Amino acid sequence: MNCNVITIGDEILIGQIVDTNSATIARMLGEIGVRVERRLTVGDSGEEIASAVTEAMRRAPLVIITGGLGPTKDDITKTTLTQLFDSRLVRHEPTYRAVEQMMKAKGIEFNELNQGQALVPECCEVLTNRNGTAPGMWLEKEGSVVVSLPGVPFEMEALMCEEVIPKVKEHFALRSVVHRTMITFGLAESMLAERIAEWEDALPEWLHLAYLPSPRQLRLRLSAYDVSAEMAEAEMERRFKELETILGSYFVGYGEESVAGVVARMLVERGATLACAESCTGGALSSRFTAEAGASAYFKGSVVSYSNDVKINLLGVRAEDISEYGAVSQQVAEQMAVGVRRVCGADYAIATTGIAGPDGGTPAKPVGTVWIAVATPEGVTSQLYRGGKLRSVNIERSSTAAINMLRLVIAK
Amino acid sequence: MNCNVITIGDEILIGQIVDTNSATIARMLGEIGVRVERRLTVGDSGEEIASAVTEAMRRAPLVIITGGLGPTKDDITKTTLTQLFDSRLVRHEPTYRAVEQMMKAKGIEFNELNQGQALVPECCEVLTNRNGTAPGMWLEKEGSVVVSLPGVPFEMEALMCEEVIPKVKEHFALRSVVHRTMITFGLAESMLAERIAEWEDALPEWLHLAYLPSPRQLRLRLSAYDVSAEMAEAEMERRFKELETILGSYFVGYGEESVAGVVARMLVERGATLACAESCTGGALSSRFTAEAGASAYFKGSVVSYSNDVKINLLGVRAEDISEYGAVSQQVAEQMAVGVRRVCGADYAIATTGIAGPDGGTPAKPVGTVWIAVATPEGVTSQLYRGGKLRSVNIERSSTAAINMLRLVIAK
Repeated sequence: MNCNVITIGDEILIGQIVDTNSATIARMLGEIGVRVERRLTVGDSGEEIASAVTEAMRRAPLVIITGGLGPTKDDITKTTLTQLFDSRLVRHEPTYRAVEQMMKAKGIEFNELNQGQALVPECCEVLTNRNGTAPGMWLEKEGSVVVSLPGVPFEMEALMCEEVIPKVKEHFALRSVVHRTMITFGLAESMLAERIAEWEDALPEWLHLAYLPSPRQLRLRLSAYDVSAEMAEAEMERRFKELETILGSYFVGYGEESVAGVVARMLVERGATLACAESCTGGALSSRFTAEAGASAYFKGSVVSYSNDVKINLLGVRAEDISEYGAVSQQVAEQMAVGVRRVCGADYAIATTGIAGPDGGTPAKPVGTVWIAVATPEGVTSQLYRGGKLRSVNIERSSTAAINMLRLVIAK
Repeated sequence: MNCNVITIGDEILIGQIVDTNSATIARMLGEIGVRVERRLTVGDSGEEIASAVTEAMRRAPLVIITGGLGPTKDDITKTTLTQLFDSRLVRHEPTYRAVEQMMKAKGIEFNELNQGQALVPECCEVLTNRNGTAPGMWLEKEGSVVVSLPGVPFEMEALMCEEVIPKVKEHFALRSVVHRTMITFGLAESMLAERIAEWEDALPEWLHLAYLPSPRQLRLRLSAYDVSAEMAEAEMERRFKELETILGSYFVGYGEESVAGVVARMLVERGATLACAESCTGGALSSRFTAEAGASAYFKGSVVSYSNDVKINLLGVRAEDISEYGAVSQQVAEQMAVGVRRVCGADYAIATTGIAGPDGGTPAKPVGTVWIAVATPEGVTSQLYRGGKLRSVNIERSSTAAINMLRLVIAK
């Protein structure tokens, strides 16, 4: 079944905020076999919203809208939907009381604007928002379902999970779908495609392969519709097993895990711990591990040694080596890794030192030069990562390269 | 003038990657007075792409497309545009040579797939992509301009900046526009709206106010179209000066800065340095500072003290206090801040210790409890931040709260 997603808000349209909601909704719907066929973003204009919703209802039996439910006067999704569904706004008592209580707990005055949050079109079914003041709404008309959700990402996500997904499964007769995703890292898309061409050509017709590139990894997804789940899963497992052999160390894992998540699992399985020493990545590398629940089981800590003093005093890097080879050097990276492993009392350690940019490059060490070192109980190894000119990309990609280097060292 | 943006790709549609390109494009166009009126995302289907582009050309004189220009067979934007513009694919020699060289430098085979990157519709003007293999394309038909750009964010961004923006300014007679943005932090949207209602009502008709909420701050933007820049800027400055007084410490700064950027500027202006000690934020707080160019001018370093050992050994937190008050306590937060200030030799230090979740909460210290401390040459202060249930939101918001606390301490 198809779905259209509409995100509403001038702040999205003019690019002040990035629309992450569409991706979250699409992923959640994909799990239950609903395909987002089209996504649209329009501004806070009644006319635009009405025309977008009308068109989407024509295109798909399910339309999910986010945004435009805030208390200020530029938020007009609710009044627009009320008109579109020939309804009128009425106060929803449970929401009114919940918002009142929420405002009280936060010490925010329960003013007219906030009271307005409890108004909903009479014809809708209210979806309870436990994390904010704007209720979700489920509306039906001429066989189409329109769901309106708040734009705040975690409010929207909780509503999707607790209310919308169960109701969609109940309301529509969905096709059965089986997805399985393999995570790869280190091969560019064109090289991966060439390497697996023969394997891909041999796939049965009913198995669909998709390349899912993202900044942190390249995923391959097999999907099967309307076949028995057992049969599909067995065939996918067999095919992916073949692919593991073809990909060798480029194969990282399965599912929705990140490369950092795979490393975390490997560490926990081994009862081993990790520490990081970061210069150019400035905390971003550590945060890739600590972003995921359960990090305290293996993550001891990090030192962000942005200045040379901190490298010398906290990590024991030799001042002479910084003078002789520079702070961005193999020698310093290795001493950082060994040092942070020691001071944090960890089994493994990763270190990064580089020139993130935009300034600070030299002909011998251009912007994007990053030394990565991994220290283990057995010793220390290092490698040179060569990035580009953009600071954010260099931080992001050298962090991923460092995590992947640790993965390969542990897997050996 | 209006523009429509179309992003293409199954990986976006199914939510495997978040579409950041639309926001980047909208921000860049907004600067020159071009308004994104509508944004659409469609999958890698020739029919969908053709219908989306045709509709967009009907709606706006400028259409910008990203994605679907990769080397693999599911990338069909180029062939679709070639048909739509009644053209044929021809090899663009400069691109062919550039891609060949790029592949050589990276040690990637220059195979048939990569050679295909140099094919472009004969009728297009090629926009040189210095950062990747897919060239940008500028196409014109019946008064409309269609620009096709690669989906890789930094390739797209460089092309927008170097090629598209200058050409758009040259090709269209654009309305003059003046924007000015104020950054606020700490007031919820409804409370801000109420506090500034009188000021807002007194704005002249030709000044348009927009609320731009985002997870890290709430911005207010004034825009003026088709008036003299000098007059608009003077009026905006006067109005915003009034607003500074109304907002007091909720006023953070102006422009595209982040709260962290404002703090960075305050530190550099004072010749002061910063260090961080992070427990629950796990590196995310430090990375907010180090993400921005020039951080090495004031940022000394951080200790991510995830384990108690690291808190005690590297930061000098008293083991007895961890036992008595717990790792998440005012006492430990303050000792972390004082400790990291000392070991990093910094003037100011921020520390965070809390329960990010999803597990680890207790009735007395539920998930979302975060103690934040700021150490200065004069002493140490601390405050309790109460977050919600979601790990990522707790990490993000407590980091912002910590940065804002430092801002208020420095500003005093």
